[in-house]
Amino acid sequence: MTQRRVLTGITTTGTPHLGNYVGAIRPAIDASKNTDDKSFYFLADYHALIKCTDPVAVQQSSKEIAATWLALGLDTDNAVFYRQSDVPEITELCWVLTCLTGKGLMNRAHAYKAAAQANVDAGDDTDKAIFMGLYSYPILMAADILMFQGSHIPVGRDQIQHVEMARDIAQRFNHLYGQTFTLPEAVVDDNVAVLSGLDGRKMSKSYGNTIPLFLPPKKLQKHINKIVTNLLEPGEPKDTADSTVFEIWEAFANEEQIAYMRQQYADGIAWGQAKKELCALIDGQISEARERYNRLMENGEEIEAVLQKGAEKARAYARPLLDDVRRKVGIGPIAK
Amino acid sequence: MTQRRVLTGITTTGTPHLGNYVGAIRPAIDASKNTDDKSFYFLADYHALIKCTDPVAVQQSSKEIAATWLALGLDTDNAVFYRQSDVPEITELCWVLTCLTGKGLMNRAHAYKAAAQANVDAGDDTDKAIFMGLYSYPILMAADILMFQGSHIPVGRDQIQHVEMARDIAQRFNHLYGQTFTLPEAVVDDNVAVLSGLDGRKMSKSYGNTIPLFLPPKKLQKHINKIVTNLLEPGEPKDTADSTVFEIWEAFANEEQIAYMRQQYADGIAWGQAKKELCALIDGQISEARERYNRLMENGEEIEAVLQKGAEKARAYARPLLDDVRRKVGIGPIAK
Repeated sequence: MTQRRVLTGITTTGTPHLGNYVGAIRPAIDASKNTDDKSFYFLADYHALIKCTDPVAVQQSSKEIAATWLALGLDTDNAVFYRQSDVPEITELCWVLTCLTGKGLMNRAHAYKAAAQANVDAGDDTDKAIFMGLYSYPILMAADILMFQGSHIPVGRDQIQHVEMARDIAQRFNHLYGQTFTLPEAVVDDNVAVLSGLDGRKMSKSYGNTIPLFLPPKKLQKHINKIVTNLLEPGEPKDTADSTVFEIWEAFANEEQIAYMRQQYADGIAWGQAKKELCALIDGQISEARERYNRLMENGEEIEAVLQKGAEKARAYARPLLDDVRRKVGIGPIAK
Repeated sequence: MTQRRVLTGITTTGTPHLGNYVGAIRPAIDASKNTDDKSFYFLADYHALIKCTDPVAVQQSSKEIAATWLALGLDTDNAVFYRQSDVPEITELCWVLTCLTGKGLMNRAHAYKAAAQANVDAGDDTDKAIFMGLYSYPILMAADILMFQGSHIPVGRDQIQHVEMARDIAQRFNHLYGQTFTLPEAVVDDNVAVLSGLDGRKMSKSYGNTIPLFLPPKKLQKHINKIVTNLLEPGEPKDTADSTVFEIWEAFANEEQIAYMRQQYADGIAWGQAKKELCALIDGQISEARERYNRLMENGEEIEAVLQKGAEKARAYARPLLDDVRRKVGIGPIAK
């Protein structure tokens, strides 16, 4: 059986928060240690440009995300960890794929359709304030995947369509120019934990309701204290079912600890106490990583060295494949 | 005054013909010797992929076009002559520009609009059989131009809009990230000779009415003999005004020769004789270049060596500019 090629991109906008950690980072870091698969993890900074025209924010986010993943123990010996923009072969492949991607396919992409529909609903021009980056993004994502012969792409439900598009594009290339690309498939884990944020909605940068992962303990407590709760007094029994505090507890606790907190709720634990215990639980699990993170953030050149090594590994895959693609489509060195 | 940067792309589809030579190649080669300007000429093979999925045809055309320009004396010491796909910085810049190009701008591009309208007229889906390469092509063209700070872009009327789009995109980048790109302007020479083809319509590959430039003399004569003429017999005076033979003669002859042929027409020269003299006139001007061309076509590695030298020169411009762009948008090495 061929080795699975698992590919995960991390868009470099924003600061990693508890929701990212529980839903994406923690399982991905576990997976990076799986020696049965060949895993690729990359900082998607070309993608960040679609959403963000603030260069300092993009830079800062790249640094924070790289430091986070390294601090949490990403296995960069087993996995290939690189920055997308260190592999210029990707944008070159992106152009080649652009030439054979039907415009109709892009018209059907959810992200574009949603933005266009919002314009129509507002009585505006369909394409108002829509940039080509958003529109063409599935082609770049196809290049990201196909460049490394990605076979298994862990994604949320909203990204399944993009993997299918990458598959369509790969099929068209293979049909026109001969078998070249592995057809990728989306791998959706429906058990992925989705955390609620301070206001009870899904924790997300766009809602401004996040708890950053590597806050100093005091600030972590302050954030946790802001989680919305109901008005039940200490001593009154509390329901675990719609409690964000309990939900986050569950995401970090083992079974014994979950049972313990469930009992505390039934016994009417004060919200302040529950939040204090939650902070201690999280802090206990991340404090060592936070130290490593802080040290890395002070030593950018150390992060950069890891990324450079990753880029070398990534390009060792990308270069021969792109050479093959170039030969197949008819560009590059002239025949004698 | 700043030195003008003149940039000319040559799409690598098809075999150069007399119409290309008179309308584009000859004036461009003259211009390549102008030491007041900095001139850039490139084989646009990434563009060729938009129109052509036959790799052998793209390869062959790249070779023929490079050999043609070199055989005709392109000054590759003064000008920068390179193959687009040897400068991967271009596709990387293309992606960066994609992120800040409004989709509405692309909707207004003539080439896309014409294709979409043809679909609508045929009762088909607007985007039927339209590929993203055609749709996004003005962004790649902007990258081609901006990569080398092109200031003056010689184009036909149909390409003015694309240069204006490159200008729009440059302005937006400069506005968002600070002054970076020269704003290019289109230079339209309305005196460019447009040759008619065998059937009297504009000589063009798409009409299948071309006379290839470097045919062996016998074949050249055969092609010229196929130029459509009227039925006037030898001895009957002929009109120069709507004569393709005379039009091509004019494109190659000096004033004295033009006056001579005008007199021959008045005197009733036989069509066969006029065509023989036309063949001799053209052959006299291109036979040396044809020998060089044939020799180059036999020695692909010689062409390749020139292109590699050109790529080095081109990348010496492209690399620092792209580094500046990367820094400005916030991708690339992490700060310490």
